[in-house]
Amino acid sequence: MTVPADNFDRDDPRAVRRAIRDGRFTGFTNQVARGYVQGNLVAVPAEHAAAFEAYCRANAAALPILGISAPGERTLPAIAEDIDLARDAGGYTVFRDGVPVETPRDARAVWRDDLVAFVLGCSFSFEAILQANGVRLRHLDENDVSAMYVTDRDTVPVGPFCGKLVVSMRALTPADAIRATLVSARYPQFHGPPVSLGLPADLGIADLAESYGGHGLTRLQPGELPVFWPCGATGQIAAREAQLPICITHHKAHMIVTDLPLPAGDI
Amino acid sequence: MTVPADNFDRDDPRAVRRAIRDGRFTGFTNQVARGYVQGNLVAVPAEHAAAFEAYCRANAAALPILGISAPGERTLPAIAEDIDLARDAGGYTVFRDGVPVETPRDARAVWRDDLVAFVLGCSFSFEAILQANGVRLRHLDENDVSAMYVTDRDTVPVGPFCGKLVVSMRALTPADAIRATLVSARYPQFHGPPVSLGLPADLGIADLAESYGGHGLTRLQPGELPVFWPCGATGQIAAREAQLPICITHHKAHMIVTDLPLPAGDI
Repeated sequence: MTVPADNFDRDDPRAVRRAIRDGRFTGFTNQVARGYVQGNLVAVPAEHAAAFEAYCRANAAALPILGISAPGERTLPAIAEDIDLARDAGGYTVFRDGVPVETPRDARAVWRDDLVAFVLGCSFSFEAILQANGVRLRHLDENDVSAMYVTDRDTVPVGPFCGKLVVSMRALTPADAIRATLVSARYPQFHGPPVSLGLPADLGIADLAESYGGHGLTRLQPGELPVFWPCGATGQIAAREAQLPICITHHKAHMIVTDLPLPAGDI
Repeated sequence: MTVPADNFDRDDPRAVRRAIRDGRFTGFTNQVARGYVQGNLVAVPAEHAAAFEAYCRANAAALPILGISAPGERTLPAIAEDIDLARDAGGYTVFRDGVPVETPRDARAVWRDDLVAFVLGCSFSFEAILQANGVRLRHLDENDVSAMYVTDRDTVPVGPFCGKLVVSMRALTPADAIRATLVSARYPQFHGPPVSLGLPADLGIADLAESYGGHGLTRLQPGELPVFWPCGATGQIAAREAQLPICITHHKAHMIVTDLPLPAGDI
């Protein structure tokens, strides 16, 4: 008897992680385990961990800390009992001296004993909540992910970490933009309220078609506004700017899927 | 010894009402008694009061009820001990059979013994709160009042009362639009959050230069969004649509100034 390659429970975060680890699921994570928190991954050498933590706290809207591993540990029981941070994202970018050098599906071969992994809040976590509150997320209906943009706004620098704020964008009707603002404000751990809306130039974004990373292809339609939230990819920019000897992040929209349920009552 | 004609305490609602009553203050009320709640006035014949109250409750974002007078009473101690609703707005529109027939400064001569006066929340009340929360209201800096527009959205009809939603507009930066949304949402008694923003066409507004009543001349500047709140003037439209034998409302931005302090801690 053959089992279909994609035969796993998409609502179960543990099953999703196993499917990612086994290569049975290779897609972006925004449409799986939707009742659970997802996170950005930034792993830095231990000697830079304190500065990176301070950088995250100084830029908490973009970089809300969900968990920090012990040095060299690829586990993080506070977010998921069985997680392997070097495997379960299913897509990694490895930076050396600030330069991206490879994007493996599995990062075990390059993981170092001195790495400290930060898991940071992600707006994917509030998308299910927004939908439950009546907000239409057209990019999800179209099987897309939200687009990201590098803005012209400087983050608060700490030690070697600095750089521009990255945002994620969703195309919303005015009523949904207002509703999404009010709902997302309740979740600072997932970036909180938007940082801007309506006018891409307010963030120095010249062209919405030029998204960071090249994914997120949903275009504004008449009657929609672009709504911009702080994004955890800000941490990737900062890790590049710091020119660390090594830094490992999740790749594109392959996020860390945790076992932390979204707040009850909102989904 | 002569006293300057405008010599009164602009922060004291009782002093403001006396100055209005005496003709020493004839301006719009958005820049006086800013620590106190202001309201719209709609007085209808007692036989229509129950239907109008139900209409207000069915359209509570536009028409939040702050107080209702006893039939024939021009007082409303719940909002101000010494108020005379027929004098203290300082500007009235008298409608007969739905047609505006006069705009007296003092409405005592036309007030009827069967009128029931409704005082309804007004966005002027949250303007001081928005400013205290760091929102720049440029129209106030320019000594203007917020513009109003009749939208293409139908209110929920009740009895003879129906008509389009009226909104007030403020020109805000994106960051202030977000902040103002979050702050105003805490005050449903002053209309709560915006109903729309960014796209005038979303409300069927073809030209922001064409404001309802003709006042509110502040124009959008580059980098600003129009942000639209439900407006108590919706009640005037409904009273006209109902073609009541008589209806008396405040005129333009001459609001009822109450003794109710704005919520502590926010200003």
